[in-house]
Amino acid sequence: MIIVLKPDSTAAEIGAVIARVQESGATPHPIYGIERTVVAVVGETRHVDREAFLKMPGVEKITSISAPYKLASRESHPDDTVIKLNGLRIGEREIVIMAGPCSVESRSQLLETAHAVKEAGAHILRGGAFKPRSSPYSFQGLGLKGLEILAEARELYGLYIITEVMTPQAVPLVAEYADILQIGARNMQNFGLLHAVGRVQRPVMLKRGMMSSMEELLMSAEYILAGGNYNVMLCERGIRTFEKYTRNTFDLNAVPVLKQLTHLPIIADPSHATGRWDAVPAMALAAVAAGADGLMIEVHPRPDEALSDGPQSLKPERFAETLRRVKRVAEAVDRTLSTVPAEALPLRSPAPADAHAPLA
Amino acid sequence: MIIVLKPDSTAAEIGAVIARVQESGATPHPIYGIERTVVAVVGETRHVDREAFLKMPGVEKITSISAPYKLASRESHPDDTVIKLNGLRIGEREIVIMAGPCSVESRSQLLETAHAVKEAGAHILRGGAFKPRSSPYSFQGLGLKGLEILAEARELYGLYIITEVMTPQAVPLVAEYADILQIGARNMQNFGLLHAVGRVQRPVMLKRGMMSSMEELLMSAEYILAGGNYNVMLCERGIRTFEKYTRNTFDLNAVPVLKQLTHLPIIADPSHATGRWDAVPAMALAAVAAGADGLMIEVHPRPDEALSDGPQSLKPERFAETLRRVKRVAEAVDRTLSTVPAEALPLRSPAPADAHAPLA
Amino acid sequence: MIIVLKPDSTAAEIGAVIARVQESGATPHPIYGIERTVVAVVGETRHVDREAFLKMPGVEKITSISAPYKLASRESHPDDTVIKLNGLRIGEREIVIMAGPCSVESRSQLLETAHAVKEAGAHILRGGAFKPRSSPYSFQGLGLKGLEILAEARELYGLYIITEVMTPQAVPLVAEYADILQIGARNMQNFGLLHAVGRVQRPVMLKRGMMSSMEELLMSAEYILAGGNYNVMLCERGIRTFEKYTRNTFDLNAVPVLKQLTHLPIIADPSHATGRWDAVPAMALAAVAAGADGLMIEVHPRPDEALSDGPQSLKPERFAETLRRVKRVAEAVDRTLSTVPAEALPLRSPAPADAHAPLA
Amino acid sequence: MIIVLKPDSTAAEIGAVIARVQESGATPHPIYGIERTVVAVVGETRHVDREAFLKMPGVEKITSISAPYKLASRESHPDDTVIKLNGLRIGEREIVIMAGPCSVESRSQLLETAHAVKEAGAHILRGGAFKPRSSPYSFQGLGLKGLEILAEARELYGLYIITEVMTPQAVPLVAEYADILQIGARNMQNFGLLHAVGRVQRPVMLKRGMMSSMEELLMSAEYILAGGNYNVMLCERGIRTFEKYTRNTFDLNAVPVLKQLTHLPIIADPSHATGRWDAVPAMALAAVAAGADGLMIEVHPRPDEALSDGPQSLKPERFAETLRRVKRVAEAVDRTLSTVPAEALPLRSPAPADAHAPLA
Repeated sequence: MIIVLKPDSTAAEIGAVIARVQESGATPHPIYGIERTVVAVVGETRHVDREAFLKMPGVEKITSISAPYKLASRESHPDDTVIKLNGLRIGEREIVIMAGPCSVESRSQLLETAHAVKEAGAHILRGGAFKPRSSPYSFQGLGLKGLEILAEARELYGLYIITEVMTPQAVPLVAEYADILQIGARNMQNFGLLHAVGRVQRPVMLKRGMMSSMEELLMSAEYILAGGNYNVMLCERGIRTFEKYTRNTFDLNAVPVLKQLTHLPIIADPSHATGRWDAVPAMALAAVAAGADGLMIEVHPRPDEALSDGPQSLKPERFAETLRRVKRVAEAVDRTLSTVPAEALPLRSPAPADAHAPLA
Repeated sequence: MIIVLKPDSTAAEIGAVIARVQESGATPHPIYGIERTVVAVVGETRHVDREAFLKMPGVEKITSISAPYKLASRESHPDDTVIKLNGLRIGEREIVIMAGPCSVESRSQLLETAHAVKEAGAHILRGGAFKPRSSPYSFQGLGLKGLEILAEARELYGLYIITEVMTPQAVPLVAEYADILQIGARNMQNFGLLHAVGRVQRPVMLKRGMMSSMEELLMSAEYILAGGNYNVMLCERGIRTFEKYTRNTFDLNAVPVLKQLTHLPIIADPSHATGRWDAVPAMALAAVAAGADGLMIEVHPRPDEALSDGPQSLKPERFAETLRRVKRVAEAVDRTLSTVPAEALPLRSPAPADAHAPLA
Repeated sequence: MIIVLKPDSTAAEIGAVIARVQESGATPHPIYGIERTVVAVVGETRHVDREAFLKMPGVEKITSISAPYKLASRESHPDDTVIKLNGLRIGEREIVIMAGPCSVESRSQLLETAHAVKEAGAHILRGGAFKPRSSPYSFQGLGLKGLEILAEARELYGLYIITEVMTPQAVPLVAEYADILQIGARNMQNFGLLHAVGRVQRPVMLKRGMMSSMEELLMSAEYILAGGNYNVMLCERGIRTFEKYTRNTFDLNAVPVLKQLTHLPIIADPSHATGRWDAVPAMALAAVAAGADGLMIEVHPRPDEALSDGPQSLKPERFAETLRRVKRVAEAVDRTLSTVPAEALPLRSPAPADAHAPLA
Repeated sequence: MIIVLKPDSTAAEIGAVIARVQESGATPHPIYGIERTVVAVVGETRHVDREAFLKMPGVEKITSISAPYKLASRESHPDDTVIKLNGLRIGEREIVIMAGPCSVESRSQLLETAHAVKEAGAHILRGGAFKPRSSPYSFQGLGLKGLEILAEARELYGLYIITEVMTPQAVPLVAEYADILQIGARNMQNFGLLHAVGRVQRPVMLKRGMMSSMEELLMSAEYILAGGNYNVMLCERGIRTFEKYTRNTFDLNAVPVLKQLTHLPIIADPSHATGRWDAVPAMALAAVAAGADGLMIEVHPRPDEALSDGPQSLKPERFAETLRRVKRVAEAVDRTLSTVPAEALPLRSPAPADAHAPLA
């Protein structure tokens, strides 16, 4: 249920509506738009008296939301969400590039890669410090040491950091080092983890599970939004099908369809979605043409030696060439690659401001 | 097994190799390239004496083909196949556009649509006269009447015609009216039909089955090629997965992967692959960015009244707008939309020349 | 739409209803049950005047069918269809066993297998004379020679014959030799072929496509029923999924669900559904426990030498042991294996009587 | 890598082998069988000197394990694992029945159901206190209150308790109340949770993810086994496919295939695997015929009022009737339903003994 306020409603009127929602046992989520304010009412709404709200000053109308997700739906929030990381904005006309190795393997490997992706034009450095692996005997990541290496790369090269968090307990630690918390595909329905990242104010990138529908992805995003963290972006990274020539099937249909259903930014990951480095450049171009707001691409200086996911990693020179081609396609669809002013990146980013913070 | 001849081999030497393959019980398929000729040997090769061939004049070497398909593989035919329809060439730098209604419903509906898609820049008119339908009670197409209407549109608007053929018996009839024979997704493994279209010299567009792997698609193409018809193009039109927000899942990974595996042109059909008109423009752009050689798009003047597949049809004005955007993306990947000189389309196309016809 | 006649309606009244349906442009399918007759009206029913039918003598009521299939639905035909092959009845309490090799490879191979499966208790001999193969270079079957070998085994061992038909043209030939025509999984939506087998009176076993839904299976059965052939049985033989330890995923859920939706007998094929001989016995038991009316099992005297599908074939002794275990499970669910009196099998079965033949 | 000791090896010799494995940096998992002992070596084995082990007293041979899972493989542990819960043994000839509601909704609902399933012959009571739900707005379970109600039902009716645990933090709490910890399908690759249940000595039932392969299931089991908890059973509960008439596709192939690959007991859950109460009885019979060691079935006194998964719940009388039929099929495959002596269930089960405890 969405309470739409009049364009000229006052802060006092909005406050009164919010208070009344709370009294009725449901949870109000005010969304402050440029033209008007709406209050999404989530949780138990059976005892909410619609008529009473309609009579309150400042209220224009009340609409129901048909989708099972509310805060994530475009119905409740028609404007695109824009996530701000100091100089970088995700979800607007400019496309952001996340790149780096699957795993942080060593200081020299990460710094070499960070240098190369920064030179090529990437904005955000990816690299797993905690790795979800199907086998308990596979490399599980460097842990805290990996986070420290990422932090060093951040300062040296002026790159934002995105890295995966795997357990609720690790959220505060990872949030201390990372600019964006990544929820991996296998954890898309790890509801305890979704709750945990909903309570911090770091941006979150939620990857679609390889077995999950778009609706389930949006419902998992809803867990984070309902927790109070509105800085959520979604990532399409391939789904599991019968096809065996590629590791996954890249569901690029999800880009235009999600864009209609939700206001959240959409990132595409052609590396995991294909599992083949030789298909990554073409699919990176396709993702941008389909409307993605950003790309996540695996880059490794020596893919043959990578401890995980080597066959899908680009070498630095191929990555640089790919970005040159991405830029041309971006311009053909009236977008461009982000440019971050050199001074934009502070030594340590504070928790970013809430994307939907009150106007006043 | 592939017999590679020397660059300076003579027609007599090539002829001797072909004759010897026939004597050994296998079938020779000579492929005449610009630089050199190779002879693909298909069928039963257990009794073929490799040593004997190596000693023949003009033979350079013999290689095995690891893929289960041979004629369709890029190993046996490194150059791209280019299918020529008078003024139009499919499989080169220029991208071809096929457009029209799912079904030919009436003369006025088809002519109105043909006029619109020609104006917008399409080259080939699609329209089903024989329709494969899951239910025996659904509209099954106008049959011969539909073919006649297509032929009329062809002459009036200078558009090539592509239409589906569903049974071996109907192949001669459909080949009389159509410039390109379409094998639908449900018939991709209808081997009797594949045999039948392998024996005519009309170009064939083979659609990937919704349940078929890329390997199976290439093996079905192999049936047509082994029958002697080398003018085959493949079409990715979406596969069946668990996702329910779209009718199918568009496997655009197939475009770059098939481009590596085969020399045949690849067409993409965003209309069937999404099932939603509102996702078609974005996915048309994505397909071109991924490297497709052509697009097949459903267009209907009044989608609400369509007898089949209305929800995925674009209205003419939206189609025209989409093509303008496609053109920009094509140029961003160093391609362009085909332009056909007005005089290119003869009143009735003869059976096109074999794409691999002998040099002499 | 279903016109339900009164229990005491006369042949003349029924005839008048049928004639009126024809006049209105739709097709009547009378179904003569033990207690009463109903007339299923298929095709174009928009111009059918329901009121007029309700006023006719002998008519009790008119009901709509919600499922997209009508003749196949249990709504229109509540009693189980029983297919009669002289002494054998398919679809009742007794379970039928179809067994034999994937392909007829030679006279000696087939006769040896026929002898073994007859000894073990099978009723129907399977064996492909025309084989649908993904590759044009794989063994395609012995063709007519294979049919003749099957006919010889039929006479020698008193086994009914089931074999696949792949093209509309081959239907008369195969129907001359086979007691049951098999439509393979790849041809489940080969509508020309479905039409063709709908016009003969041989029983048909329609295999579910490897990526076809139950609804599509029932709609394909509807094509055959609407053609006038009511002797149709369905076969679950596994669907395609992401799981790789088995060739297909055996969808045994389909057995109880189809039993609710349709009156047609359901056969289960654990050989194709698993692709592993070591899982066939367990899954044969499971299929019977789930309610299947029959089993189709691949048996080969020397699976290692089989030209097709060797890894899923049982050796004769293991097949015999499996049938002993199947019999025990059948009895635990109040069924048993069929026993055919020795004299039941005529030298050449005539086209069997229509399961729904008129009473008079 | 598996070190196989001689039948007459001494405890001292075994101890020396174990110590040497530890020195080399890998982890030894001794498995004490009836006839002989083997030591599975897991983790980093590159620096392990095989020759040195072969020379040690008591060592017979060293074998490699080809599967990516070791402790879970039948190669390393040929005998079936039997999990002992006082009077109940899971993984032997007797079949165990787990039944109860999807969620604990109230004290009266649970006690009524517990009474009914005990009367019908169930051994273990299921009921979710913590519920993983796709939507943050769905009923999330009663939490600790639910655990207390389960404990009360345990004492009143002499039923063991199985209930789901969703986060690593909750493991100690749930292990205090439950006899078996359930890992739900969505958490099959929640590696933090797998680690946590690997460190307690409660038996664990690991449900297969809805789009997880058998191999991934075994690798997730390996996480628990490698943590030191050998009391693991697996549960097939249906996988996600394109079929829409059932909620999931019950992959019963997994029962015989997993039985070959692993020594762990296999439970089958026809309620989630079909999502339709009307298919549950048939598929319960099928699962037992396929070789399952136990069944998990949802039972609710008033399915229409259930807060979750009502459409797949059996009413108590239908559940009782189903168990009578299950018993007959079990006997037809030489098994039976477990019978637990009344005095078997202690007021509070201690942590069960390790199934693989040392002999001495």
